[in-house]
Amino acid sequence: MNFASDNWAGASPQINAALAEHGGGFAAAYGSSDLDEKARQKIGEIFEKDVSVLFVPTGTAANSLAAALIMKPGGIVLAHRESHMIEDECGAPELLSGGGRLVGVDGIDGKIDPVALAQVLKRHDPPFLHYGRPVGMSITQATEVGTVYRVREIAALTDLAATSKLPVHMDGARFANAIVRLDKTPAELTWKAGIDFVSFGASKNGCWCAEALVIFDRSLQEEAEYLRKRAGHLFSKSRFVAAQYLAWLENDLWLDLARHANSMAEELARRISQSGRVKLAWECEANSVFVYMEEETSTQMRKAGARFYPWHLPAGHTPPGDVPESCGLFRLVTSFATTPAEIESFSRLLERS
Amino acid sequence: MNFASDNWAGASPQINAALAEHGGGFAAAYGSSDLDEKARQKIGEIFEKDVSVLFVPTGTAANSLAAALIMKPGGIVLAHRESHMIEDECGAPELLSGGGRLVGVDGIDGKIDPVALAQVLKRHDPPFLHYGRPVGMSITQATEVGTVYRVREIAALTDLAATSKLPVHMDGARFANAIVRLDKTPAELTWKAGIDFVSFGASKNGCWCAEALVIFDRSLQEEAEYLRKRAGHLFSKSRFVAAQYLAWLENDLWLDLARHANSMAEELARRISQSGRVKLAWECEANSVFVYMEEETSTQMRKAGARFYPWHLPAGHTPPGDVPESCGLFRLVTSFATTPAEIESFSRLLERS
Amino acid sequence: MNFASDNWAGASPQINAALAEHGGGFAAAYGSSDLDEKARQKIGEIFEKDVSVLFVPTGTAANSLAAALIMKPGGIVLAHRESHMIEDECGAPELLSGGGRLVGVDGIDGKIDPVALAQVLKRHDPPFLHYGRPVGMSITQATEVGTVYRVREIAALTDLAATSKLPVHMDGARFANAIVRLDKTPAELTWKAGIDFVSFGASKNGCWCAEALVIFDRSLQEEAEYLRKRAGHLFSKSRFVAAQYLAWLENDLWLDLARHANSMAEELARRISQSGRVKLAWECEANSVFVYMEEETSTQMRKAGARFYPWHLPAGHTPPGDVPESCGLFRLVTSFATTPAEIESFSRLLERS
Amino acid sequence: MNFASDNWAGASPQINAALAEHGGGFAAAYGSSDLDEKARQKIGEIFEKDVSVLFVPTGTAANSLAAALIMKPGGIVLAHRESHMIEDECGAPELLSGGGRLVGVDGIDGKIDPVALAQVLKRHDPPFLHYGRPVGMSITQATEVGTVYRVREIAALTDLAATSKLPVHMDGARFANAIVRLDKTPAELTWKAGIDFVSFGASKNGCWCAEALVIFDRSLQEEAEYLRKRAGHLFSKSRFVAAQYLAWLENDLWLDLARHANSMAEELARRISQSGRVKLAWECEANSVFVYMEEETSTQMRKAGARFYPWHLPAGHTPPGDVPESCGLFRLVTSFATTPAEIESFSRLLERS
Repeated sequence: MNFASDNWAGASPQINAALAEHGGGFAAAYGSSDLDEKARQKIGEIFEKDVSVLFVPTGTAANSLAAALIMKPGGIVLAHRESHMIEDECGAPELLSGGGRLVGVDGIDGKIDPVALAQVLKRHDPPFLHYGRPVGMSITQATEVGTVYRVREIAALTDLAATSKLPVHMDGARFANAIVRLDKTPAELTWKAGIDFVSFGASKNGCWCAEALVIFDRSLQEEAEYLRKRAGHLFSKSRFVAAQYLAWLENDLWLDLARHANSMAEELARRISQSGRVKLAWECEANSVFVYMEEETSTQMRKAGARFYPWHLPAGHTPPGDVPESCGLFRLVTSFATTPAEIESFSRLLERS
Repeated sequence: MNFASDNWAGASPQINAALAEHGGGFAAAYGSSDLDEKARQKIGEIFEKDVSVLFVPTGTAANSLAAALIMKPGGIVLAHRESHMIEDECGAPELLSGGGRLVGVDGIDGKIDPVALAQVLKRHDPPFLHYGRPVGMSITQATEVGTVYRVREIAALTDLAATSKLPVHMDGARFANAIVRLDKTPAELTWKAGIDFVSFGASKNGCWCAEALVIFDRSLQEEAEYLRKRAGHLFSKSRFVAAQYLAWLENDLWLDLARHANSMAEELARRISQSGRVKLAWECEANSVFVYMEEETSTQMRKAGARFYPWHLPAGHTPPGDVPESCGLFRLVTSFATTPAEIESFSRLLERS
Repeated sequence: MNFASDNWAGASPQINAALAEHGGGFAAAYGSSDLDEKARQKIGEIFEKDVSVLFVPTGTAANSLAAALIMKPGGIVLAHRESHMIEDECGAPELLSGGGRLVGVDGIDGKIDPVALAQVLKRHDPPFLHYGRPVGMSITQATEVGTVYRVREIAALTDLAATSKLPVHMDGARFANAIVRLDKTPAELTWKAGIDFVSFGASKNGCWCAEALVIFDRSLQEEAEYLRKRAGHLFSKSRFVAAQYLAWLENDLWLDLARHANSMAEELARRISQSGRVKLAWECEANSVFVYMEEETSTQMRKAGARFYPWHLPAGHTPPGDVPESCGLFRLVTSFATTPAEIESFSRLLERS
Repeated sequence: MNFASDNWAGASPQINAALAEHGGGFAAAYGSSDLDEKARQKIGEIFEKDVSVLFVPTGTAANSLAAALIMKPGGIVLAHRESHMIEDECGAPELLSGGGRLVGVDGIDGKIDPVALAQVLKRHDPPFLHYGRPVGMSITQATEVGTVYRVREIAALTDLAATSKLPVHMDGARFANAIVRLDKTPAELTWKAGIDFVSFGASKNGCWCAEALVIFDRSLQEEAEYLRKRAGHLFSKSRFVAAQYLAWLENDLWLDLARHANSMAEELARRISQSGRVKLAWECEANSVFVYMEEETSTQMRKAGARFYPWHLPAGHTPPGDVPESCGLFRLVTSFATTPAEIESFSRLLERS
C-alpha cells in the first residue's frame, strides 16, 4: 500500500534490460556516443522537431538548467506559487542560474491564473531596476497537485508571456501522465502551444535516473552545455541515460506506464470516495489523488502500513464546508508499479479505520 | 583499441545484475532507503569508520560538494595546478561553493610539492583580507597523470595543512587503482593519513554512475545534505546508486576490476616501450600510460582505429633530451574492460606505424 | 515641492564641513584609521554596547551583508513581503549571500504579523530539506510605508524567531526617524529587544554616503570583513564615511535632522488632509505620508512641478469604501531638507488642482 | 614620511569644495540627476566618445562589473598573474559575475606577455568544455608594479584578444598616472588601442570616493545597470560622485595631481638610489617605487615613522646578483599629497639607518 511518491518505485524490467544490453563495449563519454545521438533523435521524433537534448541527473537539475538558460542579471522567473521549482528545489534554480530569483504567481489547482499573471507582468512593465525584471516563466505539466493544463490554458499563459517577450519552460516531471490524460501529442502540448523548453522527466515513470532538458531552439545548445557542465550535471557514461530513454520511448512504453499509473489513480480515487471516509480535494487528472481525511484515520492507516504524505493546503484553496476541521489534506501517488491489489488493500483498510 | 578514457567503458555485468535485482518494489526516495543505509554501512566497513556517505551524480559533483563544505567567504581551496578540479570542472567547485576559488600549487608527477605548499601557506600566514584565505586543500589519488601518492607523501601534505588548520579532501575518482597499486587499506590512505573527505569514485571502474562523497566527520552530514540538494545532485531513486556500490564492493569486485585495469596498463606500457616507437613520459603507477610519440605516428594510429588523446605537457615538466620536438605527449587509459587482445592489436599497429 | 524621496536631498552643511576637515593628511586605508575607530566607538556609545561596525556604500550593501552573515546552504531569510530587501534590491541579498533566498511574510502596515510569522515557522519545523530552511529574519524600522514598530512589537517577533534560533536583522535605513518618533534609545529598539544586526543608515538623513552594518556580536566581525571585501564594498578611503558618521552623531545632529523630517511629514499630512483632496492611507509615523489621490489630480500636481511617486497597494490592504476607484496610492517623503514653504506651496497647489 | 599607498591620502581641497557646492537642494537619486549626466558628458569629452558611465563605490566594484558584463557560463577572464583582480579582490569579480573565473597570464614588469597570452589562447582554441572558455581579458594601466604599457604594447594584446573575439577591460585605478607619463590622450590609450571598458579611478588621485566603469559600447548600459544594482553598488545620492568627477576633471586637475604624484615618485627614486642603501627593482614609470632594501634597514625605517609595505617578489622576477639575500622587496607609493619635505626626511632617514 505504497502511495508515498512515484519515485519510490524502482525501474521497469525493460529499462534494466536496456542497461544490461548496452553495458559492454566502449562508447564516447560525456554525451557524444552514438547511443546519445540516437536517443536525441528519438526524442526529436516524439516532439516532431529537431531538438537539443541535455541529459541531467535530476528534475531539479533540468529545471535549474532551464532557469539558467533564460536568466539575466536582476532576472526573475515566474512560476506557480506552489511549483516544485519554488517549493522543492532548495534554491537550486537560484544558485545554478548564477543568482537569479523565482517569483510565485497565484492560481488554483496548481495552475497559474492568467489574470494573476497579467497583473504581475503589468507591474513590471516597464521593468523597475530596483525590483528586477521578469526574464521567463515556468509552468508544470502535470501540476504538483495532479491536475493537467489544457492546450488552450497553456496557450493563454504563453500568449501573455510573449507580450513581455518571456521564454516559457515546462516542468514535465510528469509529462507522460499529462499526455495520456489529454490524448494530445507532445508537440501540441509544448512548442505548438508556445513552450520553449521542457524538463522531460522519465525517472518518475519507470526509469532509474533519466531526466533531460529538451530545447526547441538548437542555437541555445552550446550555452546549455556549459551550464550543465559547470553545475556538475554532465554524466561521464551518459549512454546509461540514453539507453533508458530509448527503451522507455520504444513501442510507447512510456505512455503505457503512464496510462497504468493514471488509471490506478482514477481507480483509487473512485474506490476511496465510495468509502465515505475521505473526500476528494479536487479532481484527479493524472497520477496523484488529493483527499481530506481525518488526521486520526491517517495515523491509523499509516500504522497499518499504508504509505502516503500530508500536504500543505494550497494558498487560496478553502476546504468545502462539509470537511471537518479535524481533517487534513493528504496526497496519494500511483505509479507504473501500483497494482490493483494495493488499491484493494488500501480501500479495505480505509473502510476499517 | 580503445584507450581514450576509463569512462568510455560501460558497466560490468555484476553491476547490471544488481540493478535488475533491486528494480522491483517500493523503497524510500532521496537516500533514505534500506539499501542506501546498507551501502553506507558497507562503505563504512571498507573505510573502517562510521562515515557519512552522499551519493552524487558525477565526480565533479563530489569534488564540488567537498569544496562547498569547507568553503568560507573569501576562501581558497589549494589543489594541484593540473588537478581535475582546476582544469576539468568548468568552474563547478567555484559556483557550487557559492563563490569560492581554487588556487593551483606546483609539483611534478601530478603531486603537490610540499615545498611549494609550504610557500603558499607561508604567504597566507597571517591571511591577507584583500587576497582571501586558504580554507582547505585537495589532493588527487591516483593523480591525473597516473601516479600514486605514497602514504608518507600524503601525510607530509596533510601535516602542513594541519598547521594552517586546513581540512583536506581527496579526489578519489581512481581511488581503487591507487589502493591496489599500494596494497594499503582505504583507511591507511585516507583518514589515518589526515584526509577528511574522499570523493570515492566507482564510475570509472565498472559502474554506470556511482559517485559518493565520503565524510569522516559525521557532524557535517546535515550541511552536506543541503549543499547536495541545492546543487540539483540529490537522486530521487537513490537506491540505484546504492545497488551499484553494494555490488561493486561485494567480494572485492572493485579491487579486482582495478587490479585488472592496472595490470593492463602495466602490460601496455611494457609492450609499447619495447617497440622503441614511443617513450614513457613517466612511470605508470595506476591505469594511465603517458608516452611521447611522433605526432605523425599518432595520426596514423588514430586513423587505423586506435583511440587515445593528446595531453598538455605538465607545467615544470621537460621532455628528456632524446625526445624529438616532433613528438607530442599522449595519454592511454586502461579500464576493467581492457583486454589483452586490444593491447596486442595496439602494439602491433604501433610497430607498423 | 520635492517629496520624491529622502535620498533626493543632498548633504547637510555639517557633513560637508566634516569632510573638508578630514581631507588632509594621511590615514590608514580600508577602515583601519583612527577616525574609523573613533566612529566605531561613537556608534558603540550610541548603542550602549561594544559593537562591530562595517561601513558599506549602500543600504542594499548593509542589508545584503547581514543576509550573508546569517546565510547557510538552502537558507531562507524571512522578511516582510514588501520589504526593501525583497522588493527593491534586485537580488543583491541573494547574490551576495552566495545563493540564499528571501521569503516574504505577510502583515499590514509594513510590519510582519506575528501570527503569519508563527505559521511560516511552524511550516518549517522541522525543516524540510527540499524546501530549504529559515536561517534568519529581517524587519524594517521605520517600515517601507512610514510606520514604526513599537518595542513590544519587535520583541514579539524576535521572541518567535528565538524559538527557531533565528538571528534577527533590522533594516534601519530610516532608524533615526523611528528613534525620534518613539522616544526610545537605540539600545531599547535593537539588542535589548532581541535584534542582532542593524543596518544603521545615515544617507537618507543628511549624509552623502554613510551606511553601516552594526553587529552586536563582535565575534562575527572577521567573517563580515571577508564578506564585505568580496562584495566590492570595502572603501579604500574609509575615513570619509567615518567623518560623516562622527559629524552626524555629534550633538545629536542625527536626531535633530530626523525630528525635522518627521515633523515636516506630520505637518504635510495635516495640511493636505484638511484640503479634502486626498485621504491618508494610514497614519504617518515617520517621514513618509501615504495618500489616496485622484490620478488626475496627481498628474496635474506633477505637471505643476510637485515631485512624488505612485505606490503599489500593499498586499492585504483595501482602500476604505469612500475612496473612489479613480484614486491611486501615492507616497510623499520629507527629509532634513524639507521646508515649511514647500509644504505650503504643495498644499496650495493641491487645493487648486 | 607616508609612502604606504595613494589611498592613505585624503581628498584635495577642490573635491571638498565641489561637495559643499552641490550639497544643497534636491536632485534625482540613483544616477539620474543633471549632475550625473553632466559628469557623464564630461567623461565622454575626455575620452572623445559618447560613453556610458557607471559610478561605483570601489575599484574592485568597477573591475567586477566589467568582469560580470563579459562573463558567460564556464567563462574565464584572463589577467596578469599578479593583477589586482586576481590578487587583491578577494573573489569579488568571481562572485559578482555569478560564478566566473580569472586565470593568470605571465609577464614581467606587471604586464601580460604577448607570447604567454598567445599560448593561453592557443590552448583554448577551440575551447574545451571541461576546462571552460576565455571570455575576456583585463590589463592594468598603470600596472600594479608601477610600470606603464605603451600604446603599441596595449595594441599587441588587444590584437591577440580580437583574434579570439575577447573584449578587453582596462583596470585604470591609476589611469591618470599613465596618461601623464605617456603624454597620450585617454582615447589613444583605450578605445583607439582596442580597449572596450575602463575602470576609470579617481579615488587614488585626490578624490574621496570616485570610481566609474566607462563603457565604450553604450548598448551594454542596461545590462550593466542591473549588474551594478544587484551588487549593492548603486549609490542613492549619486551626485556626490558626479560632483567629485566634475571637479577632478575641471581644468585638468586630475592630470596636475597625477603629474605631481609621478614627479614625487621620480624624485624619491632618484634620491634614495643615490643613497646606495637601496636598489631600484625596476624603473619607476608612474607613482610607485619598488626597491630592494635590507630587511633590517626597513625595520629601522618603519620604527622611525616611515610608512611603506613589503611586496611579494613577482613570479619570474629574479633580483640582480648584487642584491644580498638579506634584502627584501618594498613598495613606496606617492600621491597628490606627497611633499618634497617628506621625500627629504625619508632620504635622510635612509642614509642614517
